[in-house]
Amino acid sequence: MRPAAPNRTCPHEQRPDTGQRRHRRPAPHPQQRLELLLIRRAREPFIDQWALPGVLVNGRCADASLDAAATRALDEKARVVPRHLEQVATVGSASRDPRGWSMSTIYLALLCPTTVLEGDDLRFFALDAIPALPFDHTELVAQAHARLAAKAVYTALPLHLLQPRFTVTEALGAFEASLGQAVQHTTLRGRLERMKDKGWIVDTGEKNRPPMGRPQNLLEHRPQPGKVFVFDRSVLV
Amino acid sequence: MRPAAPNRTCPHEQRPDTGQRRHRRPAPHPQQRLELLLIRRAREPFIDQWALPGVLVNGRCADASLDAAATRALDEKARVVPRHLEQVATVGSASRDPRGWSMSTIYLALLCPTTVLEGDDLRFFALDAIPALPFDHTELVAQAHARLAAKAVYTALPLHLLQPRFTVTEALGAFEASLGQAVQHTTLRGRLERMKDKGWIVDTGEKNRPPMGRPQNLLEHRPQPGKVFVFDRSVLV
Repeated sequence: MRPAAPNRTCPHEQRPDTGQRRHRRPAPHPQQRLELLLIRRAREPFIDQWALPGVLVNGRCADASLDAAATRALDEKARVVPRHLEQVATVGSASRDPRGWSMSTIYLALLCPTTVLEGDDLRFFALDAIPALPFDHTELVAQAHARLAAKAVYTALPLHLLQPRFTVTEALGAFEASLGQAVQHTTLRGRLERMKDKGWIVDTGEKNRPPMGRPQNLLEHRPQPGKVFVFDRSVLV
Repeated sequence: MRPAAPNRTCPHEQRPDTGQRRHRRPAPHPQQRLELLLIRRAREPFIDQWALPGVLVNGRCADASLDAAATRALDEKARVVPRHLEQVATVGSASRDPRGWSMSTIYLALLCPTTVLEGDDLRFFALDAIPALPFDHTELVAQAHARLAAKAVYTALPLHLLQPRFTVTEALGAFEASLGQAVQHTTLRGRLERMKDKGWIVDTGEKNRPPMGRPQNLLEHRPQPGKVFVFDRSVLV
Protein backbone atom coordinates (compact mmCIF):
# COMPACT_ATOMS: atom_id res chain seq x y z
CA MET A 1 0.00 0.00 0.00
CA ARG A 2 1.26 3.42 -0.77
CA PRO A 3 1.69 5.88 2.03
CA ALA A 4 -0.90 8.62 1.59
CA ALA A 5 0.72 11.97 0.87
CA PRO A 6 0.97 13.73 4.20
CA ASN A 7 -0.63 17.10 4.76
CA ARG A 8 0.85 19.76 6.95
CA THR A 9 0.01 22.84 8.93
CA CYS A 10 2.04 25.50 10.71
CA PRO A 11 3.04 27.79 13.04
CA HIS A 12 0.99 25.32 14.71
CA GLU A 13 1.86 23.44 11.62
CA GLN A 14 -0.23 20.37 11.36
CA ARG A 15 -0.56 17.73 8.73
CA PRO A 16 -2.50 14.54 8.46
CA ASP A 17 0.23 11.98 8.97
CA THR A 18 1.00 9.10 6.66
CA GLY A 19 -2.25 7.23 6.45
CA GLN A 20 -3.44 3.84 5.33
CA ARG A 21 -5.77 3.56 2.40
CA ARG A 22 -9.27 4.65 3.10
CA HIS A 23 -12.32 2.39 2.95
CA ARG A 24 -15.91 3.29 2.17
CA ARG A 25 -17.08 2.49 5.67
CA PRO A 26 -15.48 4.99 8.04
CA ALA A 27 -13.52 3.59 10.93
CA PRO A 28 -14.44 4.85 14.42
CA HIS A 29 -11.16 6.74 14.47
CA PRO A 30 -9.54 8.61 11.61
CA GLN A 31 -6.66 6.92 9.89
CA GLN A 32 -4.76 10.13 9.26
CA ARG A 33 -3.21 12.38 11.82
CA LEU A 34 -2.05 15.97 11.85
CA GLU A 35 1.55 16.94 12.32
CA LEU A 36 2.91 20.09 13.89
CA LEU A 37 5.99 22.04 12.82
CA LEU A 38 8.27 22.96 15.72
CA ILE A 39 11.55 24.80 15.89
CA ARG A 40 14.45 24.14 18.24
CA ARG A 41 15.00 27.30 20.28
CA ALA A 42 18.36 28.98 19.68
CA ARG A 43 18.16 31.25 22.75
CA GLU A 44 17.37 31.33 26.43
CA PRO A 45 14.98 30.82 28.05
CA PHE A 46 14.37 27.18 27.17
CA ILE A 47 17.32 27.03 24.78
CA ASP A 48 17.44 23.85 22.63
CA GLN A 49 13.83 22.93 23.43
CA TRP A 50 11.26 22.39 20.68
CA ALA A 51 8.76 25.27 20.55
CA LEU A 52 6.43 27.16 18.21
CA PRO A 53 8.25 29.39 15.73
CA GLY A 54 7.68 33.10 16.34
CA VAL A 55 9.16 36.57 16.18
CA LEU A 56 9.16 39.65 18.35
CA VAL A 57 6.64 42.01 16.73
CA ASN A 58 8.15 45.32 15.61
CA GLY A 59 11.21 44.83 17.82
CA ARG A 60 14.67 44.84 16.28
CA CYS A 61 12.95 44.34 12.95
CA ALA A 62 10.23 46.82 11.91
CA ASP A 63 6.87 45.27 11.01
CA ALA A 64 4.24 47.20 9.04
CA SER A 65 1.51 45.26 10.82
CA LEU A 66 0.83 42.29 13.06
CA ASP A 67 -0.11 40.15 10.06
CA ALA A 68 3.16 41.17 8.39
CA ALA A 69 5.00 39.93 11.48
CA ALA A 70 3.20 36.58 11.24
CA THR A 71 4.29 36.26 7.63
CA ARG A 72 7.84 37.14 8.68
CA ALA A 73 7.76 34.40 11.35
CA LEU A 74 6.80 31.86 8.68
CA ASP A 75 9.40 33.17 6.27
CA GLU A 76 12.38 33.60 8.59
CA LYS A 77 11.77 31.05 11.32
CA ALA A 78 9.58 28.26 9.94
CA ARG A 79 10.87 28.83 6.40
CA VAL A 80 7.69 27.58 4.78
CA VAL A 81 4.98 29.09 2.59
CA PRO A 82 1.51 28.32 3.96
CA ARG A 83 -1.54 27.51 1.86
CA HIS A 84 -3.71 29.28 4.42
CA LEU A 85 -2.96 31.61 7.32
CA GLU A 86 -5.39 32.92 9.90
CA GLN A 87 -5.15 34.58 13.26
CA VAL A 88 -6.49 32.42 16.08
CA ALA A 89 -6.18 34.42 19.29
CA THR A 90 -4.01 36.61 21.46
CA VAL A 91 -2.96 35.58 24.94
CA GLY A 92 -1.37 37.79 27.53
CA SER A 93 -0.54 37.41 31.19
CA ALA A 94 2.04 38.03 33.88
CA SER A 95 2.78 34.32 34.26
CA ARG A 96 3.26 32.85 30.80
CA ASP A 97 6.86 33.99 30.35
CA PRO A 98 9.48 33.87 33.12
CA ARG A 99 10.80 37.23 31.93
CA GLY A 100 7.57 39.05 32.83
CA TRP A 101 4.23 40.20 31.40
CA SER A 102 3.97 39.15 27.78
CA MET A 103 1.49 38.87 24.94
CA SER A 104 1.54 36.53 21.96
CA THR A 105 -0.75 36.44 18.96
CA ILE A 106 -1.09 32.96 17.51
CA TYR A 107 -1.80 32.12 13.90
CA LEU A 108 -2.90 28.88 12.28
CA ALA A 109 -1.01 28.11 9.07
CA LEU A 110 -2.04 25.19 6.89
CA LEU A 111 0.76 23.64 4.87
CA CYS A 112 0.82 21.67 1.68
CA PRO A 113 1.72 17.94 2.04
CA THR A 114 4.80 18.40 -0.14
CA THR A 115 6.34 21.02 2.16
CA VAL A 116 10.05 20.39 2.65
CA LEU A 117 11.73 21.63 5.82
CA GLU A 118 14.95 23.59 5.52
CA GLY A 119 17.28 23.12 8.48
CA ASP A 120 18.00 20.72 11.31
CA ASP A 121 16.25 23.03 13.75
CA LEU A 122 12.85 22.34 12.15
CA ARG A 123 10.85 19.14 12.48
CA PHE A 124 7.30 17.84 12.14
CA PHE A 125 5.84 16.04 15.15
CA ALA A 126 2.66 14.00 15.24
CA LEU A 127 0.15 16.33 16.87
CA ASP A 128 -0.85 13.67 19.39
CA ALA A 129 2.77 13.03 20.33
CA ILE A 130 4.42 16.42 20.62
CA PRO A 131 7.11 16.88 23.26
CA ALA A 132 6.61 19.01 26.37
CA LEU A 133 6.69 22.62 25.12
CA PRO A 134 8.01 25.72 26.89
CA PHE A 135 5.90 28.71 27.95
CA ASP A 136 2.19 28.07 27.35
CA HIS A 137 2.85 26.66 23.88
CA THR A 138 1.03 23.39 24.58
CA GLU A 139 -2.12 25.38 25.31
CA LEU A 140 -1.59 27.56 22.22
CA VAL A 141 -1.32 24.45 20.05
CA ALA A 142 -4.57 23.19 21.56
CA GLN A 143 -6.28 26.50 20.73
CA ALA A 144 -5.09 26.44 17.12
CA HIS A 145 -6.14 22.81 16.76
CA ALA A 146 -9.56 23.57 18.26
CA ARG A 147 -10.04 26.35 15.71
CA LEU A 148 -9.23 23.98 12.83
CA ALA A 149 -11.48 21.25 14.24
CA ALA A 150 -14.38 23.66 14.80
CA LYS A 151 -14.17 25.09 11.29
CA ALA A 152 -13.79 21.63 9.74
CA VAL A 153 -17.34 20.84 10.89
CA TYR A 154 -18.98 23.37 8.60
CA THR A 155 -16.36 24.82 6.23
CA ALA A 156 -13.98 23.67 3.53
CA LEU A 157 -10.93 24.85 5.49
CA PRO A 158 -9.26 21.36 5.57
CA LEU A 159 -8.89 21.45 1.78
CA HIS A 160 -6.00 23.87 2.39
CA LEU A 161 -4.13 20.90 3.87
CA LEU A 162 -4.02 19.40 0.38
CA GLN A 163 -2.33 20.26 -2.85
CA PRO A 164 -4.59 22.33 -5.13
CA ARG A 165 -5.41 19.12 -7.04
CA PHE A 166 -6.75 16.38 -4.86
CA THR A 167 -8.92 13.27 -4.80
CA VAL A 168 -12.04 12.74 -2.69
CA THR A 169 -10.08 10.18 -0.67
CA GLU A 170 -7.44 12.77 0.15
CA ALA A 171 -10.12 15.30 1.09
CA LEU A 172 -11.68 12.73 3.41
CA GLY A 173 -8.29 12.24 5.07
CA ALA A 174 -7.85 15.97 5.57
CA PHE A 175 -11.29 16.37 7.14
CA GLU A 176 -10.89 13.34 9.40
CA ALA A 177 -7.43 14.44 10.52
CA SER A 178 -8.72 17.95 11.25
CA LEU A 179 -11.75 16.70 13.14
CA GLY A 180 -10.08 13.79 14.91
CA GLN A 181 -13.03 11.62 13.96
CA ALA A 182 -14.46 9.69 11.06
CA VAL A 183 -16.53 11.35 8.33
CA GLN A 184 -18.97 9.55 6.01
CA HIS A 185 -17.58 9.34 2.49
CA THR A 186 -20.99 10.02 0.96
CA THR A 187 -21.52 13.04 3.21
CA LEU A 188 -18.25 14.65 2.20
CA ARG A 189 -18.87 13.85 -1.46
CA GLY A 190 -22.18 15.71 -1.18
CA ARG A 191 -20.48 18.76 0.34
CA LEU A 192 -17.84 18.76 -2.41
CA GLU A 193 -20.57 18.54 -5.06
CA ARG A 194 -22.10 21.67 -3.58
CA MET A 195 -18.72 23.40 -3.88
CA LYS A 196 -18.57 22.34 -7.53
CA ASP A 197 -22.00 23.89 -8.12
CA LYS A 198 -20.70 27.17 -6.72
CA GLY A 199 -17.42 27.12 -8.65
CA TRP A 200 -15.15 26.54 -5.64
CA ILE A 201 -14.09 23.15 -7.00
CA VAL A 202 -13.73 22.08 -10.61
CA ASP A 203 -13.42 18.63 -12.10
CA THR A 204 -10.11 18.55 -13.96
CA GLY A 205 -11.12 15.56 -16.07
CA GLU A 206 -7.80 13.98 -15.08
CA LYS A 207 -7.03 11.09 -12.79
CA ASN A 208 -4.17 10.39 -10.42
CA ARG A 209 -1.96 7.33 -10.88
CA PRO A 210 -1.66 5.54 -7.57
CA PRO A 211 0.92 2.71 -7.43
CA MET A 212 -1.92 0.45 -6.30
CA GLY A 213 -5.66 0.51 -6.80
CA ARG A 214 -7.79 2.31 -9.36
CA PRO A 215 -7.02 5.83 -10.56
CA GLN A 216 -9.22 8.48 -8.96
CA ASN A 217 -10.63 11.73 -10.30
CA LEU A 218 -8.58 14.82 -9.58
CA LEU A 219 -10.52 17.82 -8.36
CA GLU A 220 -9.12 21.34 -8.26
CA HIS A 221 -9.68 23.68 -5.34
CA ARG A 222 -10.43 27.26 -6.39
CA PRO A 223 -10.90 29.18 -3.15
CA GLN A 224 -11.87 32.83 -3.23
CA PRO A 225 -9.13 35.00 -1.70
CA GLY A 226 -9.65 35.63 1.99
CA LYS A 227 -12.85 33.56 2.11
CA VAL A 228 -13.70 30.05 3.16
CA PHE A 229 -16.59 28.01 1.77
CA VAL A 230 -19.36 27.45 4.34
CA PHE A 231 -21.43 24.29 4.00
CA ASP A 232 -25.21 24.28 4.43
CA ARG A 233 -24.89 21.22 6.65
CA SER A 234 -22.29 19.90 9.05
CA VAL A 235 -19.97 17.21 7.66
CA LEU A 236 -20.75 15.16 10.78
CA VAL A 237 -24.39 14.49 9.89
CA MET B 1 -48.19 47.55 18.71
CA ARG B 2 -45.73 47.16 21.48
CA PRO B 3 -42.09 47.94 20.86
CA ALA B 4 -40.15 44.70 20.98
CA ALA B 5 -37.63 44.66 23.82
CA PRO B 6 -34.35 45.73 22.34
CA ASN B 7 -31.26 43.50 22.55
CA ARG B 8 -27.78 44.83 22.96
CA THR B 9 -24.14 43.98 22.48
CA CYS B 10 -20.85 45.63 23.50
CA PRO B 11 -17.61 46.67 23.39
CA HIS B 12 -18.81 46.49 19.99
CA GLU B 13 -22.05 46.49 21.81
CA GLN B 14 -24.85 45.67 19.51
CA ARG B 15 -28.51 45.10 20.01
CA PRO B 16 -31.40 44.38 17.76
CA ASP B 17 -33.17 47.70 17.74
CA THR B 18 -36.79 48.30 18.56
CA GLY B 19 -38.64 46.14 16.09
CA GLN B 20 -42.11 45.76 14.75
CA ARG B 21 -44.05 42.62 15.42
CA ARG B 22 -42.88 39.66 13.44
CA HIS B 23 -44.98 37.79 10.88
CA ARG B 24 -44.84 34.16 9.84
CA ARG B 25 -43.60 35.02 6.38
CA PRO B 26 -40.16 36.58 6.71
CA ALA B 27 -39.64 39.95 5.13
CA PRO B 28 -36.75 40.33 2.67
CA HIS B 29 -34.97 42.45 5.27
CA PRO B 30 -34.90 41.89 9.01
CA GLN B 31 -37.13 44.09 11.06
CA GLN B 32 -34.73 44.33 13.97
CA ARG B 33 -31.37 46.01 14.01
CA LEU B 34 -28.32 45.81 16.21
CA GLU B 35 -27.11 48.69 18.30
CA LEU B 36 -23.58 49.47 19.32
CA LEU B 37 -22.43 50.94 22.64
CA LEU B 38 -19.98 53.81 22.23
CA ILE B 39 -18.21 56.02 24.75
CA ARG B 40 -17.35 59.69 24.39
CA ARG B 41 -13.57 60.00 24.64
CA ALA B 42 -12.37 61.98 27.66
CA ARG B 43 -8.81 62.43 26.38
CA GLU B 44 -6.75 63.34 23.37
CA PRO B 45 -6.37 62.25 20.69
CA PHE B 46 -9.92 62.56 19.37
CA ILE B 47 -11.24 64.02 22.64
CA ASP B 48 -15.08 64.22 22.82
CA GLN B 49 -15.54 61.88 19.84
CA TRP B 50 -17.59 58.69 20.13
CA ALA B 51 -15.37 55.60 20.12
CA LEU B 52 -15.17 52.00 21.31
CA PRO B 53 -14.60 51.69 25.06
CA GLY B 54 -11.20 50.24 25.95
CA VAL B 55 -8.35 50.26 28.43
CA LEU B 56 -4.57 50.21 28.25
CA VAL B 57 -3.59 46.61 29.06
CA ASN B 58 -1.39 46.28 32.13
CA GLY B 59 -0.49 49.97 32.03
CA ARG B 60 -1.20 52.17 35.04
CA CYS B 61 -3.51 49.41 36.23
CA ALA B 62 -2.10 45.88 36.55
CA ASP B 63 -4.01 43.18 34.66
CA ALA B 64 -3.59 39.49 35.45
CA SER B 65 -4.33 38.64 31.83
CA LEU B 66 -5.61 40.05 28.55
CA ASP B 67 -9.08 38.62 29.22
CA ALA B 68 -9.02 40.28 32.64
CA ALA B 69 -8.27 43.59 30.93
CA ALA B 70 -11.28 43.09 28.62
CA THR B 71 -13.49 42.52 31.65
CA ARG B 72 -12.04 45.63 33.25
CA ALA B 73 -12.86 47.66 30.10
CA LEU B 74 -16.47 46.52 30.35
CA ASP B 75 -16.62 47.19 34.07
CA GLU B 76 -14.85 50.55 34.25
CA LYS B 77 -15.51 52.10 30.86
CA ALA B 78 -18.68 50.57 29.40
CA ARG B 79 -20.10 49.91 32.88
CA VAL B 80 -22.17 46.96 31.71
CA VAL B 81 -22.20 43.21 32.43
CA PRO B 82 -22.24 41.19 29.20
CA ARG B 83 -24.19 37.99 28.64
CA HIS B 84 -21.36 36.73 26.42
CA LEU B 85 -17.81 37.87 25.81
CA GLU B 86 -15.38 36.55 23.22
CA GLN B 87 -12.14 37.71 21.71
CA VAL B 88 -12.43 38.54 18.04
CA ALA B 89 -8.98 39.56 16.82
CA THR B 90 -5.89 41.61 17.45
CA VAL B 91 -4.79 44.35 15.11
CA GLY B 92 -1.46 46.08 15.13
CA SER B 93 0.27 48.52 12.82
CA ALA B 94 2.37 51.65 12.61
CA SER B 95 -0.48 53.68 11.10
CA ARG B 96 -3.59 53.01 13.17
CA ASP B 97 -2.76 55.47 15.98
CA PRO B 98 -1.23 58.92 15.40
CA ARG B 99 0.96 58.38 18.48
CA GLY B 100 2.85 55.48 16.88
CA TRP B 101 2.89 51.69 16.52
CA SER B 102 0.00 50.21 18.48
CA MET B 103 -1.88 46.99 19.00
CA SER B 104 -5.48 46.48 20.10
CA THR B 105 -7.29 43.28 20.94
CA ILE B 106 -11.00 43.51 20.23
CA TYR B 107 -13.73 41.60 22.02
CA LEU B 108 -17.35 41.03 21.13
CA ALA B 109 -19.69 41.43 24.09
CA LEU B 110 -23.36 40.58 23.78
CA LEU B 111 -25.65 42.52 26.07
CA CYS B 112 -29.04 41.80 27.50
CA PRO B 113 -31.92 43.93 26.10
CA THR B 114 -32.61 45.37 29.55
CA THR B 115 -29.12 46.81 29.93
CA VAL B 116 -29.23 50.33 31.36
CA LEU B 117 -26.39 52.73 30.58
CA GLU B 118 -24.80 54.66 33.43
CA GLY B 119 -23.48 58.05 32.43
CA ASP B 120 -23.89 60.71 29.76
CA ASP B 121 -20.68 59.57 28.09
CA LEU B 122 -22.28 56.25 27.03
CA ARG B 123 -24.84 55.79 24.28
CA PHE B 124 -26.24 53.12 21.98
CA PHE B 125 -26.16 53.82 18.25
CA ALA B 126 -27.92 51.87 15.53
CA LEU B 127 -25.17 49.75 14.03
CA ASP B 128 -26.04 50.91 10.53
CA ALA B 129 -25.94 54.58 11.56
CA ILE B 130 -22.88 54.96 13.77
CA PRO B 131 -20.94 58.22 13.57
CA ALA B 132 -17.46 58.46 12.05
CA LEU B 133 -15.15 56.78 14.56
CA PRO B 134 -11.53 57.63 15.39
CA PHE B 135 -8.52 55.36 14.82
CA ASP B 136 -9.54 52.21 12.91
CA HIS B 137 -12.60 51.68 15.11
CA THR B 138 -15.01 51.57 12.17
CA GLU B 139 -13.07 48.61 10.80
CA LEU B 140 -12.93 46.96 14.24
CA VAL B 141 -16.71 47.25 14.55
CA ALA B 142 -17.06 45.63 11.13
CA GLN B 143 -14.81 42.74 12.23
CA ALA B 144 -16.81 42.15 15.42
CA HIS B 145 -20.07 42.31 13.50
CA ALA B 146 -18.75 39.89 10.88
CA ARG B 147 -17.86 37.45 13.65
CA LEU B 148 -21.37 37.61 15.08
CA ALA B 149 -22.97 37.27 11.64
CA ALA B 150 -20.75 34.30 10.71
CA LYS B 151 -21.50 32.45 13.93
CA ALA B 152 -25.22 33.22 13.71
CA VAL B 153 -25.38 31.04 10.59
CA TYR B 154 -24.59 27.82 12.43
CA THR B 155 -24.57 28.47 16.19
CA ALA B 156 -26.94 29.64 18.91
CA LEU B 157 -24.77 32.67 19.72
CA PRO B 158 -27.56 35.24 19.03
CA LEU B 159 -29.56 33.84 21.96
CA HIS B 160 -27.10 35.71 24.19
CA LEU B 161 -28.69 38.91 22.87
CA LEU B 162 -31.85 37.94 24.74
CA GLN B 163 -32.84 37.63 28.34
CA PRO B 164 -32.47 34.04 29.62
CA ARG B 165 -36.23 33.57 29.11
CA PHE B 166 -37.37 34.32 25.60
CA THR B 167 -40.02 33.57 23.00
CA VAL B 168 -39.41 32.08 19.54
CA THR B 169 -40.35 35.45 18.07
CA GLU B 170 -37.66 37.16 20.11
CA ALA B 171 -35.13 34.51 19.08
CA LEU B 172 -36.03 35.10 15.44
CA GLY B 173 -35.43 38.82 15.92
CA ALA B 174 -32.02 38.18 17.47
CA PHE B 175 -30.94 35.89 14.61
CA GLU B 176 -32.21 38.23 11.91
CA ALA B 177 -30.56 41.23 13.52
CA SER B 178 -27.26 39.33 13.82
CA LEU B 179 -27.39 38.07 10.26
CA GLY B 180 -28.77 41.19 8.65
CA GLN B 181 -31.22 39.04 6.73
CA ALA B 182 -34.49 37.20 7.16
CA VAL B 183 -34.68 33.70 8.67
CA GLN B 184 -37.53 31.24 8.17
CA HIS B 185 -39.60 30.90 11.31
CA THR B 186 -40.01 27.15 10.83
CA THR B 187 -36.26 26.71 10.27
CA LEU B 188 -35.35 28.47 13.50
CA ARG B 189 -38.04 26.59 15.38
CA GLY B 190 -36.47 23.32 14.20
CA ARG B 191 -33.02 24.41 15.42
CA LEU B 192 -34.44 25.39 18.80
CA GLU B 193 -36.19 22.00 19.08
CA ARG B 194 -32.80 20.37 18.59
CA MET B 195 -31.41 22.48 21.42
CA LYS B 196 -34.29 21.33 23.61
CA ASP B 197 -33.45 17.70 22.82
CA LYS B 198 -29.89 18.33 23.99
CA GLY B 199 -30.89 20.22 27.16
CA TRP B 200 -29.64 23.62 26.02
CA ILE B 201 -33.17 25.02 26.07
CA VAL B 202 -36.04 24.07 28.34
CA ASP B 203 -39.72 24.79 28.05
CA THR B 204 -40.66 26.76 31.14
CA GLY B 205 -44.36 25.95 30.77
CA GLU B 206 -45.04 29.67 31.21
CA LYS B 207 -46.15 32.30 28.75
CA ASN B 208 -45.34 35.96 28.34
CA ARG B 209 -48.06 38.60 28.55
CA PRO B 210 -47.75 40.91 25.58
CA PRO B 211 -49.94 44.05 25.68
CA MET B 212 -51.31 42.94 22.32
CA GLY B 213 -51.65 39.57 20.60
CA ARG B 214 -51.64 36.08 22.00
CA PRO B 215 -49.34 35.01 24.86
CA GLN B 216 -46.31 33.02 23.68
CA ASN B 217 -44.38 30.19 25.28
CA LEU B 218 -41.33 31.21 27.27
CA LEU B 219 -38.23 29.13 26.65
CA GLU B 220 -35.20 29.21 28.90
CA HIS B 221 -31.65 29.27 27.55
CA ARG B 222 -29.27 27.00 29.47
CA PRO B 223 -25.90 27.41 27.76
CA GLN B 224 -22.94 25.35 28.89
CA PRO B 225 -20.20 27.60 30.30
CA GLY B 226 -17.65 28.61 27.67
CA LYS B 227 -19.45 26.69 24.91
CA VAL B 228 -21.82 27.61 22.14
CA PHE B 229 -24.38 25.25 20.62
CA VAL B 230 -23.54 24.27 17.04
CA PHE B 231 -26.44 23.43 14.71
CA ASP B 232 -26.36 20.48 12.32
CA ARG B 233 -27.67 22.75 9.58
CA SER B 234 -27.36 26.41 8.74
CA VAL B 235 -30.28 28.62 9.81
CA LEU B 236 -30.30 30.02 6.27
CA VAL B 237 -31.49 26.80 4.57
